[in-house]
Amino acid sequence: MKRFSDRLVESIRKVGNPCVVGLDPRIDLMPAFVKTGRGRPTKKIVRSVIRDFHELVLDAVADLVPAVKPQLAFFEQYGSAGIEAFEDTVLAARQRGLLVIADGKRNDITSTAEAYAEAFLGESEVLGEKQKAFDADAMTVTPYLGRDSLLPFVEVCRREGKGIFVVLKTSNEGSRDYQDQTLQATERPLYESIAATVNELGRPLIGDSGYSSVGAVVGATFRKDARRLRSLMPRTFILVTGYGAQGASGRNAAVCFNPDGLGAIVSSSRAITYAYADENLISRSFAKCVRENTLRMIDDITKALAAPARAG
Amino acid sequence: MKRFSDRLVESIRKVGNPCVVGLDPRIDLMPAFVKTGRGRPTKKIVRSVIRDFHELVLDAVADLVPAVKPQLAFFEQYGSAGIEAFEDTVLAARQRGLLVIADGKRNDITSTAEAYAEAFLGESEVLGEKQKAFDADAMTVTPYLGRDSLLPFVEVCRREGKGIFVVLKTSNEGSRDYQDQTLQATERPLYESIAATVNELGRPLIGDSGYSSVGAVVGATFRKDARRLRSLMPRTFILVTGYGAQGASGRNAAVCFNPDGLGAIVSSSRAITYAYADENLISRSFAKCVRENTLRMIDDITKALAAPARAG
Repeated sequence: MKRFSDRLVESIRKVGNPCVVGLDPRIDLMPAFVKTGRGRPTKKIVRSVIRDFHELVLDAVADLVPAVKPQLAFFEQYGSAGIEAFEDTVLAARQRGLLVIADGKRNDITSTAEAYAEAFLGESEVLGEKQKAFDADAMTVTPYLGRDSLLPFVEVCRREGKGIFVVLKTSNEGSRDYQDQTLQATERPLYESIAATVNELGRPLIGDSGYSSVGAVVGATFRKDARRLRSLMPRTFILVTGYGAQGASGRNAAVCFNPDGLGAIVSSSRAITYAYADENLISRSFAKCVRENTLRMIDDITKALAAPARAG
Repeated sequence: MKRFSDRLVESIRKVGNPCVVGLDPRIDLMPAFVKTGRGRPTKKIVRSVIRDFHELVLDAVADLVPAVKPQLAFFEQYGSAGIEAFEDTVLAARQRGLLVIADGKRNDITSTAEAYAEAFLGESEVLGEKQKAFDADAMTVTPYLGRDSLLPFVEVCRREGKGIFVVLKTSNEGSRDYQDQTLQATERPLYESIAATVNELGRPLIGDSGYSSVGAVVGATFRKDARRLRSLMPRTFILVTGYGAQGASGRNAAVCFNPDGLGAIVSSSRAITYAYADENLISRSFAKCVRENTLRMIDDITKALAAPARAG
């Protein structure tokens, strides 16, 4: 079975860039044409509004980027209708040849971690049948519960050719509170201890591309930490957050890449899907705008990766 | 608006014990009568199997305990059908007067954390209407992303009379990996820094009962850490995990309580719902078994709280 990391490298090479479109369904921010004439917001209507919106976005970017990153929180805010729309969105993305990274920052201990891993990346036994619940290609997981909480995810990745991105250093100010704390045992920040675990767990999942299917989430807002994490985890794919709406530049995102131009993907959500000037634009103009926002991001990241400043 | 902590104390006083029944839907572990004659596992069938099972469990325990704790991972493993069953379960529990603690260990940054908070405890705007997605009474959240990631949850708790339990020290061996690490700045374990934040954020949400609606998750498997956390957070409600199937004794759970006999709730899942001898028992025998398992737990915890060893 082909490893997730190899599939990701293949997709990046095909489109020629490492940009990922984040899908954060926020009906309040969607253009009027998606919403008008829908009537009362029943479950069926909510599901179809989100599905229709994402199909438009996916059609606009499917040939441009290697992957999309749906954010579970924004689906969950619409209850089970939102989760049905999440299923629709995963399917629609895969049908268009896009890899899907489910951003839910899940984790728990023992059999509960197993259930999360099987839910998003594997399969569950249901009345004697094996069924896939969400069937994403990769998911984000939190590390606070310890190394053993990550094992069920790694095992499902190995078995199913899927991937995880372990949250190491986030793009918010509050990431300093605990992630950056210097440990007495190592005299280094906590996130470096977790990086060591990511390296160790990822080693058996390194594919032909030289990269592992056990990745890491790193915010590009803190350039120095990002550069340090890049050097500590040479075989790890980094999911770079904080670019765009959260303020990190392409130049900052570039420090998360290896000299081979690989090893990271950069995600942007609102700056792609909700950055349009006129909320009364028609469907075709909206799709054009999403495509232009994506092309602008690709251009910015490509230039930043080409610039010699990357090493600096 | 009545605070969550006050509602919780009221419910505990009404039933006379702090035991919480965990709801982990695992169809493979359910007795045969729930499953037989159901036909192929369509979404509709899966939803009704879980709903029927939980209605039986809830009827068996509703007069005995103050709250139930559905674990999201086990619902998510069944996809959107599982999430519909989660909605059914929350509603069925509330209709029976039980408080609902959604155990999903969610969190993220900024507007994403807001979306999680509104999804489980608040309301979302959907095409001009305010709708509640899941409407639990409380939820569990992870702290790794920092103090600012917790603020949206605290704000929704304040506004809606809801509660959170911040994961501090879990019951697994791996909780030693990061949670227990001594920080250079404080010369104390990481979880104590987070406990200080829980205290600080919880202070404005202390109710008439003297307890805050910002609680903490503490595993009872590590007695010394649990006792320390109890003393550091006198106004915090502790959700005690690790009791029962995970090996912590009633005596260990007891150290999470204050001398007033309040300040903690103890959760047990599998030892209540899946500890039956004969998988071919009939519905009434199953309900009787769930009730007896619950009564046994209540007896064990009540005795442990009465024993003088608590202080030891």
